[in-house]
Amino acid sequence: MKNGKVTLLSAGPGALDLLTLRAARVLGEADVLLVDDLANPEIATLAPQARVIAVGKRGGCRSTPQAFIERLMCRFARRGAHVVRVKGGDALMFGRAGEEISALRRAGVPVDIINGVSSAFAAAAGLGMSLTHREHCAGVTFVTAHRQDGSAPNWAALAATGTTLAIYMGLHRVEELSETLLAHLDAATPAGAVQWAGSPQERRMVTSLGRLAADVRAAGFASPTILLVGGAVGEAALAAVEPSAAVGVDVGEAAADVVHDVIARAA
Amino acid sequence: MKNGKVTLLSAGPGALDLLTLRAARVLGEADVLLVDDLANPEIATLAPQARVIAVGKRGGCRSTPQAFIERLMCRFARRGAHVVRVKGGDALMFGRAGEEISALRRAGVPVDIINGVSSAFAAAAGLGMSLTHREHCAGVTFVTAHRQDGSAPNWAALAATGTTLAIYMGLHRVEELSETLLAHLDAATPAGAVQWAGSPQERRMVTSLGRLAADVRAAGFASPTILLVGGAVGEAALAAVEPSAAVGVDVGEAAADVVHDVIARAA
Repeated sequence: MKNGKVTLLSAGPGALDLLTLRAARVLGEADVLLVDDLANPEIATLAPQARVIAVGKRGGCRSTPQAFIERLMCRFARRGAHVVRVKGGDALMFGRAGEEISALRRAGVPVDIINGVSSAFAAAAGLGMSLTHREHCAGVTFVTAHRQDGSAPNWAALAATGTTLAIYMGLHRVEELSETLLAHLDAATPAGAVQWAGSPQERRMVTSLGRLAADVRAAGFASPTILLVGGAVGEAALAAVEPSAAVGVDVGEAAADVVHDVIARAA
Repeated sequence: MKNGKVTLLSAGPGALDLLTLRAARVLGEADVLLVDDLANPEIATLAPQARVIAVGKRGGCRSTPQAFIERLMCRFARRGAHVVRVKGGDALMFGRAGEEISALRRAGVPVDIINGVSSAFAAAAGLGMSLTHREHCAGVTFVTAHRQDGSAPNWAALAATGTTLAIYMGLHRVEELSETLLAHLDAATPAGAVQWAGSPQERRMVTSLGRLAADVRAAGFASPTILLVGGAVGEAALAAVEPSAAVGVDVGEAAADVVHDVIARAA
């Protein structure tokens, strides 16, 4: 029997052609696919031999407990399967990869990781802005709106860093978090929101920190939405980039051909 | 004459198969390639029709002034060329993308952006760690060791965020920056270094903040090196991941085949 293993694979922000070449190749080799519900479900078409199992747990509704996902990965790998655990965005950003790597190591299951494009990068591309424009900041911070223990991150310190803030899973707390940030940042600080960044359904807006909560509510933004706060976001407001190329709406057909070619080659 | 445009294209951390499918396709369509010297020069093989111009400016030695690069992009685009500006890592992270987007907008040249894998993600994959392990942090901050005006970032605030710190271009100041961080973080705080993350030459180490400077000097780490500091890095020390898959050393041939297929298809 061949040796099983687990690959933590980054599905990127949505459009299939934002997968890496390595990811496309490895999908073609998968025996079992465990797919996160933030990943584009069409990714399964790239793994024609694989048994596909959806293991979503969106927005607090934990339909698949984490421990169960970990047991499932170990069980299939021990039977010799190449298990590909597909995660939206980059696998190493906000996706329980740390816990899964630990569980697999404890079980003696080999694990490897294939990187990808995290949603905040796609959000910045959609807005046509650098995340780290050097006239505005020294870097960028990717943060969730709440910690594992339910506490909030240290917004005062985050504001003081002067980095662009890219806030994941923050929409449901946008009133609270923008109010907290307003204690440390000017209301005129540029802010933006991008829903379904990097997918054909992408929606974007640029506003100010003072208006962020009201504006995203009025526009009906829903999860998943990335919020961006900081001087660098002000560059996005100057002009729109070419939306088709930035969000990949019109490359569907071509991308599918390319992907199928990669798969044919890997098979 | 066709309309020219500029694509800011993310080359990823080094291995060609960490390019996205979209990037591989668009390289095949390029008329002119302006290549950063942090990008893998082999990327030019994916743009067989393109005129290739190296526009590096590594480590402070500004061989190609930024204004000249911007003029070059505009000039070729105005003549109708599809100019592809290749940047190491993700184009929107620490690569002057902000200034280039502004310059292109001012010149009325259409610009689009193709995301990729930033080096710190590849560094984390190499170390087998999540950048945002939820038991250790609320997120991750990507920061450079010095600002445009020569000042240092606010290390006290960065330390207080409790996020994992991923420090780009910090090796030449590692003594100074670790000393500053030690005023705010425990000497036992886990720290790591990854040189040429995501490329076949990748080198890694895991140590502590207190020993970081001495250890990277003793091991002879050189630029480009990503430094990682924070509790999440402690997870990396537990065991090594499978290095071949993580760094892609042994996929060279297969990746080249896949890439050429993509190009053949796009042509």
